[in-house]
Amino acid sequence: MEEKSYGPVVPEDFTFGLTEEDKLLLDCGRKLGPVNIRFETYGKLDEKKSNAILILHALSGDAHVAGYLDGDRSKIGWWDGMVGPGKGFDTDKYFIVCSNVIGGCSGSTGPRSFNPDSQNFSKIYNMDFPVITIADMVRAQYRLMKHLGISQWLALAGGSMGGMQALEWAVSYPEAVRSIIPIATTSRLSPQSIAFNWVGRQAIMNDPKWNSGNYDLDKVPESGLAIARMLGHITYLSDKSMDRKFGRELQESESYTFDFKHNFKVESYLKHQGEKFVERFDANSYLYISRAMDYFDLSGKFGGDLAIALSQVHAPFLVISFSSDWLFTPEESLKIVEALRINSTDVTYCDIKSIYGHDAFLLEVDILKRIITDFLKCRYEEVK
Amino acid sequence: MEEKSYGPVVPEDFTFGLTEEDKLLLDCGRKLGPVNIRFETYGKLDEKKSNAILILHALSGDAHVAGYLDGDRSKIGWWDGMVGPGKGFDTDKYFIVCSNVIGGCSGSTGPRSFNPDSQNFSKIYNMDFPVITIADMVRAQYRLMKHLGISQWLALAGGSMGGMQALEWAVSYPEAVRSIIPIATTSRLSPQSIAFNWVGRQAIMNDPKWNSGNYDLDKVPESGLAIARMLGHITYLSDKSMDRKFGRELQESESYTFDFKHNFKVESYLKHQGEKFVERFDANSYLYISRAMDYFDLSGKFGGDLAIALSQVHAPFLVISFSSDWLFTPEESLKIVEALRINSTDVTYCDIKSIYGHDAFLLEVDILKRIITDFLKCRYEEVK
Repeated sequence: MEEKSYGPVVPEDFTFGLTEEDKLLLDCGRKLGPVNIRFETYGKLDEKKSNAILILHALSGDAHVAGYLDGDRSKIGWWDGMVGPGKGFDTDKYFIVCSNVIGGCSGSTGPRSFNPDSQNFSKIYNMDFPVITIADMVRAQYRLMKHLGISQWLALAGGSMGGMQALEWAVSYPEAVRSIIPIATTSRLSPQSIAFNWVGRQAIMNDPKWNSGNYDLDKVPESGLAIARMLGHITYLSDKSMDRKFGRELQESESYTFDFKHNFKVESYLKHQGEKFVERFDANSYLYISRAMDYFDLSGKFGGDLAIALSQVHAPFLVISFSSDWLFTPEESLKIVEALRINSTDVTYCDIKSIYGHDAFLLEVDILKRIITDFLKCRYEEVK
Repeated sequence: MEEKSYGPVVPEDFTFGLTEEDKLLLDCGRKLGPVNIRFETYGKLDEKKSNAILILHALSGDAHVAGYLDGDRSKIGWWDGMVGPGKGFDTDKYFIVCSNVIGGCSGSTGPRSFNPDSQNFSKIYNMDFPVITIADMVRAQYRLMKHLGISQWLALAGGSMGGMQALEWAVSYPEAVRSIIPIATTSRLSPQSIAFNWVGRQAIMNDPKWNSGNYDLDKVPESGLAIARMLGHITYLSDKSMDRKFGRELQESESYTFDFKHNFKVESYLKHQGEKFVERFDANSYLYISRAMDYFDLSGKFGGDLAIALSQVHAPFLVISFSSDWLFTPEESLKIVEALRINSTDVTYCDIKSIYGHDAFLLEVDILKRIITDFLKCRYEEVK
């Protein structure tokens, strides 16, 4: 099996914060511990530990970025087209790490985790979990980096919320980043995106099964979570790609059914996406991670000046956007590029022509590969 | 009181379909009757009955297009800036009619109406109401026209779903239309819009209070309807106008509250809009009217060819779109314009530069007035 040669390797979870001093101090002022980090690695770390790349996942992603786990062919990594031998993030050359964010539900500490301070019978955080930020996620990843004995990432790369983490790394730990690849992302969530997140969360929190967050795993707020996911999906696609993919085609029917069941192909698609998501994602995690995105504003602590926020970073950037992405538009990427230029930071910017909207960062792997391969090659030649 | 001079006049509801033969045959094949039409009029019908204009409302609108009812200053008409003495639709010159659509909840027959064939105790349609189409709404309006003794409208005008009705009038009753003013609309609902409608309806139908549509009026599915409305609101505004109106400003707080209550100004705004809407709109009506929009495809019966669909119409068109409207984009209006040009139909097209998104049709009254005044003047000079 090909995947054996490059990964995924699933090391034992990294756990820290077992003592009061070692806990993770969060932006909200609370301390989190113990903290568990689920991560996977691909390829081999070179002797100088100079070829490590951290891949950062988006809202619904996890540590499983490529290949299959234990030969389980049902679940391929979320960026398999980009990570592997000879791919954009070439596992023959680089040591790839991907960890599940804190607040998530795929192995790292999140609302479904054991709460050491719980007064409740369940001993699960649920809504007692602290509201985390993108910077908090990055703080936990920094601990993981230290644990791995790595002092600098060759590159940090991610799309969407993954790009936000990459940007936050650059600002929080400029000495630890050799290069940054923010893809289809923004330096601050727009009110439109905050609004979409708000509506999605209301759908979850108004589902009676949500039960103030204290649902049993056999009785989850599936309809609320499905609505949030379906809404999200609309924002990930472009008007044009929906037109091409679905048009006004009907599903399992030659004509209008004159009822409220799924009649259009696009309705069936959304319904299916909602149902699939509920099986694999935790509703409370959805609340926490979307809230972390709301709070993301890279320039917030710098008087709203993005150039000042990025002024301590000297690592080169490769900023990538997609022409039809209306969630995190090319204009948002350009703001990052402009701020970097003000600082005379080395920046390459590519706006890729694509009809796939925000999802393009998962789909346009051929062009992404070409751009990223060259960029990484240059970075690696500088250090190896 | 100024409004007394021009309206609104609220005549007795027009009722038809009391006999089997007189019922309204719907696109779904069912017959609807009795049918009640609530309408208002403004200004005076001239002797030749040549100055009548039908204004058509959008999803959440009603017959009350301008002024105040019975001096009740709490509820101004939804297009008051456009209808009145000296306004775009000048009530000193024209006789303005606006009726609530069937399927609605503001006086015309809809899901909350008495169901003569009901087997239920409640005798209310609820979900036994037939699924209606935009063409069905127009059929009912045609009956109203006959009832008023009018044989031709000087103009039919409306924004959003109102524009769809105007277009449908042109295709269904070309002899009855002297001119058409579709504003911020489309000739067929896009899969993206169908998708948004789907998600909104799921929010309503998954609210346990919806109770398969059989809710009591003191226990309505308010959270589901509020979610649908909040979602709608995002699509009515542009990214830019949200940025200008809310930005990332916080509400009643100087800093992040690190919880899931409304913390951003845009969240408070949406919450307020949702709560207000629940007080005035019926959840089942929302289902039916949004479904009617889904099914709107002017070229559907004409092999998808919009030019053929519009080939029987010889009335001049004034097509208006707004540059930042991403729900019904300028491109959609241009498709209508191109189809008319193929038929050598007289068409004026204005894409108004505005940051207000879809809502611009309610807000950009100054520029709308200028354009519409001239267009109507020309039409009226031809007939008076």
